[in-house]
Amino acid sequence: MDDLERWWRAANYLSVGQIYLRDNPLLRRPLESADVKKRLLGHWGTTTGLNFIYAHLNRAIIARDQAMLFVTGPGHGGPANVANAYLEGTYSEIYTRFGDDEDSLRELFRQFSYPGGIPSHAAPETPGSISEGGELGYSLAHAFGAAFDNPDLVVACVVGDGEAETGPLAGSWQSTAFLDAVRDGAVLPILHLNGYKIANPTVLARRPESQLRSYLEGLGWAPRFVTVDDPQDHNGAHRDFAAALDGSLDEIRAIQERARAAGERPAHEPAAPWPLIVFRSPKGWTGPAVVDGKPVEGTWRAHQVPLSGIHENPEHLAQLEQWLRSYRPEELFTHDGARSPELGSLAPRGDRRMSATPFANGGRLLNDLRLPDPEAHMIPVEAPGVVRAGAMHNLGEWMREVIRANPTNFRLFGPDETASNRLQAVFEATDKVWQERIEGVDEHLARTGRVMEVLSEHLCQGWLEGYLLTGRHGVLNSYEAFVHIVDSMFNQHAKWLKVHRELPWRLPVASLTYLLSSHVWQQDHNGFSHQDPGFIDHVVNKKADVIRVYLPVDANTLVSTMDHCLRSRDYVNVVVAGKAASLQWLGPEEAQLHCARGIGIWDFAGSEVEGEEPDVVLGCAGDVPTAEAVAAAQMLRRDLPGLKIRVVNAVDLMRLQDEREHPHGLPDREFDALFTTDKPVVFAYHGYPWLIHRLTYRRANHGNLHVRGYIEEGTTTTPFDMAMLNRIDRFHLAIDVIDRVPGLAAKHAALRQRYEDELVRVRAYTREFGEDPEGIRDWVLEEG
Amino acid sequence: MDDLERWWRAANYLSVGQIYLRDNPLLRRPLESADVKKRLLGHWGTTTGLNFIYAHLNRAIIARDQAMLFVTGPGHGGPANVANAYLEGTYSEIYTRFGDDEDSLRELFRQFSYPGGIPSHAAPETPGSISEGGELGYSLAHAFGAAFDNPDLVVACVVGDGEAETGPLAGSWQSTAFLDAVRDGAVLPILHLNGYKIANPTVLARRPESQLRSYLEGLGWAPRFVTVDDPQDHNGAHRDFAAALDGSLDEIRAIQERARAAGERPAHEPAAPWPLIVFRSPKGWTGPAVVDGKPVEGTWRAHQVPLSGIHENPEHLAQLEQWLRSYRPEELFTHDGARSPELGSLAPRGDRRMSATPFANGGRLLNDLRLPDPEAHMIPVEAPGVVRAGAMHNLGEWMREVIRANPTNFRLFGPDETASNRLQAVFEATDKVWQERIEGVDEHLARTGRVMEVLSEHLCQGWLEGYLLTGRHGVLNSYEAFVHIVDSMFNQHAKWLKVHRELPWRLPVASLTYLLSSHVWQQDHNGFSHQDPGFIDHVVNKKADVIRVYLPVDANTLVSTMDHCLRSRDYVNVVVAGKAASLQWLGPEEAQLHCARGIGIWDFAGSEVEGEEPDVVLGCAGDVPTAEAVAAAQMLRRDLPGLKIRVVNAVDLMRLQDEREHPHGLPDREFDALFTTDKPVVFAYHGYPWLIHRLTYRRANHGNLHVRGYIEEGTTTTPFDMAMLNRIDRFHLAIDVIDRVPGLAAKHAALRQRYEDELVRVRAYTREFGEDPEGIRDWVLEEG
Repeated sequence: MDDLERWWRAANYLSVGQIYLRDNPLLRRPLESADVKKRLLGHWGTTTGLNFIYAHLNRAIIARDQAMLFVTGPGHGGPANVANAYLEGTYSEIYTRFGDDEDSLRELFRQFSYPGGIPSHAAPETPGSISEGGELGYSLAHAFGAAFDNPDLVVACVVGDGEAETGPLAGSWQSTAFLDAVRDGAVLPILHLNGYKIANPTVLARRPESQLRSYLEGLGWAPRFVTVDDPQDHNGAHRDFAAALDGSLDEIRAIQERARAAGERPAHEPAAPWPLIVFRSPKGWTGPAVVDGKPVEGTWRAHQVPLSGIHENPEHLAQLEQWLRSYRPEELFTHDGARSPELGSLAPRGDRRMSATPFANGGRLLNDLRLPDPEAHMIPVEAPGVVRAGAMHNLGEWMREVIRANPTNFRLFGPDETASNRLQAVFEATDKVWQERIEGVDEHLARTGRVMEVLSEHLCQGWLEGYLLTGRHGVLNSYEAFVHIVDSMFNQHAKWLKVHRELPWRLPVASLTYLLSSHVWQQDHNGFSHQDPGFIDHVVNKKADVIRVYLPVDANTLVSTMDHCLRSRDYVNVVVAGKAASLQWLGPEEAQLHCARGIGIWDFAGSEVEGEEPDVVLGCAGDVPTAEAVAAAQMLRRDLPGLKIRVVNAVDLMRLQDEREHPHGLPDREFDALFTTDKPVVFAYHGYPWLIHRLTYRRANHGNLHVRGYIEEGTTTTPFDMAMLNRIDRFHLAIDVIDRVPGLAAKHAALRQRYEDELVRVRAYTREFGEDPEGIRDWVLEEG
Repeated sequence: MDDLERWWRAANYLSVGQIYLRDNPLLRRPLESADVKKRLLGHWGTTTGLNFIYAHLNRAIIARDQAMLFVTGPGHGGPANVANAYLEGTYSEIYTRFGDDEDSLRELFRQFSYPGGIPSHAAPETPGSISEGGELGYSLAHAFGAAFDNPDLVVACVVGDGEAETGPLAGSWQSTAFLDAVRDGAVLPILHLNGYKIANPTVLARRPESQLRSYLEGLGWAPRFVTVDDPQDHNGAHRDFAAALDGSLDEIRAIQERARAAGERPAHEPAAPWPLIVFRSPKGWTGPAVVDGKPVEGTWRAHQVPLSGIHENPEHLAQLEQWLRSYRPEELFTHDGARSPELGSLAPRGDRRMSATPFANGGRLLNDLRLPDPEAHMIPVEAPGVVRAGAMHNLGEWMREVIRANPTNFRLFGPDETASNRLQAVFEATDKVWQERIEGVDEHLARTGRVMEVLSEHLCQGWLEGYLLTGRHGVLNSYEAFVHIVDSMFNQHAKWLKVHRELPWRLPVASLTYLLSSHVWQQDHNGFSHQDPGFIDHVVNKKADVIRVYLPVDANTLVSTMDHCLRSRDYVNVVVAGKAASLQWLGPEEAQLHCARGIGIWDFAGSEVEGEEPDVVLGCAGDVPTAEAVAAAQMLRRDLPGLKIRVVNAVDLMRLQDEREHPHGLPDREFDALFTTDKPVVFAYHGYPWLIHRLTYRRANHGNLHVRGYIEEGTTTTPFDMAMLNRIDRFHLAIDVIDRVPGLAAKHAALRQRYEDELVRVRAYTREFGEDPEGIRDWVLEEG
């Protein structure tokens, strides 16, 4: 008990110090206002509870030699994570300018929330963290992601009661339906009810305990309640929390031992509920109880900085000093500022320290995937545009082999869309994980498996982030439109990676790869709500170092792209691929070469004359626009035999950008060689057309660039009507060429009219028969 | 009972007909494959349950003369909404090409999911719908939004068990903590467990009933269970559902009567749990039980089209005919195809029809807000750049008056940030709604009020959408970075508005106005995770008709902008405004004029010579960039007195775009008059810089445009350091001018170096003292 109290006092002291002090870190002289920072930043309210929990977890880790990862839902309480990492010695090991002395303490305090220092929230800079503490709602999903396939790990996940109001967190409790007691580790949530958010009470904290118990039990948990009624009674709190924690960890072990001894749980046998601790403690516990006559401890007023105006208000300065001294720093640190040896009794050793665990620095645990030869899963293409195949279906076969070769460190995540996105071949090798009842009618459901399906993009993303950051590999497949649901989670992960890459001690982790199918041009059947290609636009706002965007055009380029993505590290890869059967363009070797280059001229589609500049460039990116661009070129070659057309396809979208803007960017010279400096360019792009302008506005020929893309027109209709509605179909593209190549429009008005007439004819047919005319649907590239 | 069964059969028949038939709508001759559509699109699985529920609600509406709104969570079951609207006569009233005859039935069937027809999901085109049925998760939040301030309304909200897995829906159950039994209406959720998603069972359907009950009770609901064990026993199902529905509606009335008689519920008295129906029925109920030897009814195979390949498979054709005939259409429709008069017994009259209720066409109920005179809440500004004020704080005072003047049809929604965003003046007029326990320490919490705070952007957005679409007004205030959490909800709402605007029978509704504060430049204290200005980029991908973006620069322009936004209809307005005290630029009259123009030259900030073109244009948009641009201009005027500088500020961002691209766009002539056609333009922009390029790439002077903005650099630091990190501060801007105006760099190398030195000096000061130097922080515009 003394150990716990001492550690807690030390961590609290270090936390208050970080928020307030720029000097006098050991209080060896009376506190002066010059010792106090001018801007006071930080979140005290949640910090003290985190410190309390951390101390208790340390006790359990040592007693049980338990591998444990700490996920901080209330990551605003960053001072707690830093304080504990410092007490454990990890901080000084990683940031070697820190030692174990007064100067180090001073610097530790000063750097917090300080220019040139460290952020106020748990962040990549924080040892032991895998969860950015800024945006709330994802801790529990991260915790589950970390626990999958780590059978000996316990992930202690503090969930704040503010965070618990968010949708993603509310949806994360159901993760118990997807965690296997045999092959996965355990998540121990500690629902921390400190009662308040910034300015309001929290819903869960204000509900009667019986109701809260009912809620959590209904979600598959067995809650233990620890309630701090008297903030002064530390002993009682330690005793109760220790009992709840020991009980929970015993229960976790018992569940796992029973499950592992029994083998596969029968289809109708329910899973045991998992333990969970509800910890009700005062917000800002041990901080100032009353300030200026108003209650602070135990209220929302303790959320950030409970005492402010220190420089103007001597009473507040005195109260701050009294508060700091209440932790008796002279007992916690030696005269020189070193940690008291007594603190060592609660510091686990080496990698058992939660601040040093390799599970929080996943690159240390990362093994390369064993990837099947992509060419072995490519389709023979004797000639471009005559074979028809489903790119996603074919990829499924390659993914099946990825799964077979990597049975414990690769998972495929998706919101109930794996089969809908045509990856069903993976079910020849694995199943979907499901811990609830399994019925005879179910297919591919099992207690274990490599596919995670839940109708929550948030959960898929959160699980995957947790899985990747603990050193494994995975892919999130989703409908393109609905991946916007996790826009903000992507933001946070991309920001995490940007900082992570700057920290030498954080080793590279596998990239987060989005495989977006059922894309905008193939959502004719689901209609307007399912049509949105804007995730790419969202992604390219983040640091160029971190993001990659690929638009493979057929089965072979898709396999090649995914092979590349699964080898990459520290990126977010966005891959958009169609699921409908469509024309194949490149054979295995050509596909590999084209993907390696990322962009190139398609000689077979154009009509250039060797050594001469083309009259027009038809650019394209994305499977459907590419097929339409090639069809347009074919029509024009037939109808305007003298016209020199060049077709340029981009698989790696960022090749369009300048090399100074993106690592994949083309030098101007190479860009100009492809797109010329003065010829009209008609570009058919998968997404919102202005993105192509954004990527190319500095290019010499930008003034001649005309882009077609999705312009937010659509409904439930046919695939080709989708193209027509957005003017990206072959006829509109051919008309664009006629309108833009000098002289053509005047000379070939009749041809132009014929294309217009074709549009009318096709639309009429579509409206009569409800499907595209065969000539459109089943076209192939004519040879020669 | 017969009435219910008959209506249900009719609705089911019309639903199957929509999915399958293009001819022979009454089956007056044997079904031929030519009668069947070639592409079969639609979601049968959920449709039949929706029809069942709809019939029962109709019975209750008639029996009780109850105003009811139907929210369709499983909106993929669009055929159900259309079928019921047709049976109620609403469809033919709205779409007058439909009558009550065979031709109309044929057209009703044919148009569904057909080119030129209607979407497959519930959509704006669907009478009675306020919820787009594509993306799942928002139905319950919409339902609550509709119920607020509509004390006599019951919102029947079908929640699919697939949808229930999403985070937003899981978080929406807690809405009971915010609904007032006295002044609001009621939400009756019908959790529809049909057991399966596209390809998987659902979590809730597979949990034991006791556990599910526990979950729902824990969330403040009193569930009634209706379980269809025998799909053949329709009578039993009708009996049980009718009892549950009557019981629920009785209980709702009892709760409301008790609450309304008692007056304000005491602070510690818990709210009564609200009734909820859990309806467990087979997916695809009444559809084919077995197809090709595989069970379909009651499994995921019934999700979309249970019988396919009709044209190739005569057995399937026969099975389809048998299925259709099982509803005995000859009893449901007269020989001429008119609805059987017997069906009338279950059709409510006029506006009581859920397909015709004005609550689903909110424009019919919309009253203009009574808006206080904005100028009365503006700050006197004798000279630009000398007065300091908090724009959001000042706006709070105006919003307070908006709330006072509109006590029942305006609400302010936000994720626990109203005070953090400095709108606390509203609490002088109102409170935050809270139905849980209220403690003595709480401030501004009450059972009723105009402010809705919950730590869930999803819930705020969903409530607001429901509130607006039922004919009221509101604002969502949020931290700028975290509004990305609702990117996808914005998408769906913007898509809804685009279609809604095209439908003459849908009357205009109030715009959805985002008030984004605590923006990227003022998140220095919260760090990198809180810094993201990309919502604007996301928004401008949607139809120009629908979206508006404003960047007011000070208190007066903010009030003027919000006044404009709250008068607008059918838009999404995005307003980004700072909360820190900052320099004021425009007096009341000037502010109104500048906002009306949207963009203009700031003479006071520049140094132009009348009648001459400037040497350089300093463009700016956003409060912080504008202050830096004006400071840069001031420095340059001091240091380079001969330089002719023009400062142009844009409050209405879309003025930058071409008039052909956006209704607010400037004609080229006017744009050129502001930005010249050949002078260097240095533009300081609030967000990601490339957006300005995207908006202006067609402008004559685009080649000379140089944009500074947020380039994803940041951490916990000082406000000015944020500007420096992203090179948008006054020194970098001044250096940009020197580098870009021909001849300056060579001639004024020393000056340029001085600015560089200033950057070094400021950064050093910041790192030493943890705050910005006073000269930076407290600068004012020198007059003259």
